[in-house]
Amino acid sequence: MSLLSKGSPRPAKSSKPRLYTARFDPYSAGIRFLLNKKGVDYDFVYINMQDKPEWLADINPAGQIPIMEIGDEIVCETIVIYDYLEDKFPQVKTQPTDPYLKAKDKIFIDHTKEYLTGKITSMVKNPTQENIEYVCSVLKSINKIMGERGTDFLGGTSPNFVDYYLWGWVELLSALKAAHELSFELDKDEYKHYWAWVMKMDKDQHINNDRETHKLNLKCRTAFFKSVINGSPDVNAGL
Amino acid sequence: MSLLSKGSPRPAKSSKPRLYTARFDPYSAGIRFLLNKKGVDYDFVYINMQDKPEWLADINPAGQIPIMEIGDEIVCETIVIYDYLEDKFPQVKTQPTDPYLKAKDKIFIDHTKEYLTGKITSMVKNPTQENIEYVCSVLKSINKIMGERGTDFLGGTSPNFVDYYLWGWVELLSALKAAHELSFELDKDEYKHYWAWVMKMDKDQHINNDRETHKLNLKCRTAFFKSVINGSPDVNAGL
Repeated sequence: MSLLSKGSPRPAKSSKPRLYTARFDPYSAGIRFLLNKKGVDYDFVYINMQDKPEWLADINPAGQIPIMEIGDEIVCETIVIYDYLEDKFPQVKTQPTDPYLKAKDKIFIDHTKEYLTGKITSMVKNPTQENIEYVCSVLKSINKIMGERGTDFLGGTSPNFVDYYLWGWVELLSALKAAHELSFELDKDEYKHYWAWVMKMDKDQHINNDRETHKLNLKCRTAFFKSVINGSPDVNAGL
Repeated sequence: MSLLSKGSPRPAKSSKPRLYTARFDPYSAGIRFLLNKKGVDYDFVYINMQDKPEWLADINPAGQIPIMEIGDEIVCETIVIYDYLEDKFPQVKTQPTDPYLKAKDKIFIDHTKEYLTGKITSMVKNPTQENIEYVCSVLKSINKIMGERGTDFLGGTSPNFVDYYLWGWVELLSALKAAHELSFELDKDEYKHYWAWVMKMDKDQHINNDRETHKLNLKCRTAFFKSVINGSPDVNAGL
């Protein structure tokens, strides 16, 4: 479970699908939940994004993770990876087959990316009242969409790629609250569809598998955020 | 061919697929070329984006075009529309069916969106030497990709969604040069794959159909850009 940093040699190719990932990266988390759900037998390589290995830029010139590698095929960009995995491993579906429902899910992800993820990221260092209120307002619009869909998950009777993408981000909120000792709470009635979804997602076996495999719980996330706030990120927190 | 503005009533629903579009919008242009290539019998509504009709926000809360409407299905966001149309009208393919080639095309579009389109947009008002050099450097990386693919078009033997997306943007460069009386020129040898592509795209029947239908040629684009530079955009230029 060691992290690869500057100076670490590039690991030998794998016969399995491989994910280049980072422990505390929410984009990577969504991809891992999905691989889990699809039952793909993959291995992974942890990248230390605070001190990247030199060869990372050879795989992805943008220097970002997650990166999916299958044989000679290397695919980056989270949303592109979702589509690639759906096409590559179609046995377990994680996207609607109906063109319009699929389009609606993609628009949902676009909006989550545009309005929510950047604010949650900036809350790590700046949990201002303004940022908190903004995040709550976006979650309120998500609560509304969940109510309109009227299903247990955004994906229907079980989580799909949109549920996993969103979960990668909202799971951070508890650790952010703990790290900053914030006391805001989303009203149980006002956000009732969102809360019902959170309760179910929290029990999802693929999310729980990931927590166990990657030793990611509230305590170690909180420790990581505290280390970021203090200016020296501890990417090994909890290992 | 009139443009709908503030106060214009929302047009009655159509029995055909309908595109809400704008004359000088490069995103819309790419979608139109694609609909043309797919042989979809669609109608369109011109939106005056300088003075939007009130009901535009009912169709797309982001207030942006292009918007595709088919029956009760309304889809926005250019890249989402590409996927939607591919699923909805699969007879004429405009995306690779191979998962990896499709992923590569989507990464190409992501990078074009990230590095090229914003700079071309800002060149309308700020054709600084720095902006010009930046655009040329991006086109050089595109020239390299075209050389590596070694095919007539990015899509192979005929243009696909990526070719049309890119064309919507690079077609603006001639009009930008004319409007600002700029004299830069991409070297014919250094950018030879790009130039070979431009020559072929310029003759594409679906692009030429669009030019005719929408009365979009170099002269009217130049007139439009001049009006933008002068501070009072003439969205009717050339009609």
